Amino acid sequence: MNHHDQLLKHISKFSALTNEDELLLTSKFRYKLVEKKDFLLQEGQVCNHYYFVLTGCLRFYKIINTGFEQILQFGIPNWWMSDYLSINNQRPSGYYIQAVEKTEVLVLTRYDADELFNEILAFNSYFRLMMQKAYTASLKKIELMLCESAEDRYLQFTTGFPEFVQLIPQYMLASFLGFTPQFLSGLRSKKL
Amino acid sequence: MNHHDQLLKHISKFSALTNEDELLLTSKFRYKLVEKKDFLLQEGQVCNHYYFVLTGCLRFYKIINTGFEQILQFGIPNWWMSDYLSINNQRPSGYYIQAVEKTEVLVLTRYDADELFNEILAFNSYFRLMMQKAYTASLKKIELMLCESAEDRYLQFTTGFPEFVQLIPQYMLASFLGFTPQFLSGLRSKKL
Repeated sequence: MNHHDQLLKHISKFSALTNEDELLLTSKFRYKLVEKKDFLLQEGQVCNHYYFVLTGCLRFYKIINTGFEQILQFGIPNWWMSDYLSINNQRPSGYYIQAVEKTEVLVLTRYDADELFNEILAFNSYFRLMMQKAYTASLKKIELMLCESAEDRYLQFTTGFPEFVQLIPQYMLASFLGFTPQFLSGLRSKKL
Repeated sequence: MNHHDQLLKHISKFSALTNEDELLLTSKFRYKLVEKKDFLLQEGQVCNHYYFVLTGCLRFYKIINTGFEQILQFGIPNWWMSDYLSINNQRPSGYYIQAVEKTEVLVLTRYDADELFNEILAFNSYFRLMMQKAYTASLKKIELMLCESAEDRYLQFTTGFPEFVQLIPQYMLASFLGFTPQFLSGLRSKKL
């Protein structure tokens, strides 16, 4: 399967593309291999790209005053990643997007995305559903943070995404779930 | 301004509608007055509507095991409200949507929404941007929950949305921010 096929296959799960749509779409996406720890966005830059993750894993984080890296989102295969605030208002981002491991992405510029949104109704629908999905996932995370104990949150996460827990370093998982690495390590030994 | 004009004005901030689009759109939205404490959705029901808030305020919440009402979202004027998970997968909702005070909404059925998304590219774009906005707002909330002290979270919220803090009962604001009402009351007297 070539790189664009993975994207087209994913879109087709949600929205019907014509052959003409597919040709226009694939002409706009550029393949990029991102080495581990390389950045796609850094604080202070204006975000001008949407990224579709093919393989690997990205993290979206900010550095808070204490120097701590607070992870807000991971980008796993078939997930979209961007700073949607910065790309929309064209102001400098307060976030970093970095490869957790060697990661393959398809890159779409803001300019080309606007063209695709205007030309292809099915792509517009697909992206609307992706944003809706990301929104419901983040509401669910807020619910877990407000309603569940730290231990239950960890259990729900490890049960729901077992491969993911294998993939990413423990200190990143701890940051994402709002734990200290020590607390997470305590939970893990308790579980084992 | 009639009820539909408020919606059309809001859409036009993000996306250009033709006269024909406007006619089709307005034919699909039904006005509804929701009395204080009346429900638009209850746990166990399949969600089949999108709501656009004209005036007043809705709350989206779930009842957790202890009987506590955990508020996850408020719907204020020009905000969309639905259970986007239930409306998409057509499974029973785990949530309630209730009017905090007398509230006016425009109601769009799932069926009509699908027709509008297929017929009007500009409406599709508008709704994509609304979902993106809701997603970035919820990511920001996660960031505040993970990075800021309870006191700073409260200050950011009251500074950012002063009218809102006047509007809704304190115990609901406490639930939304993840505080106990006692804790919030302590913060408020400290601030005064």
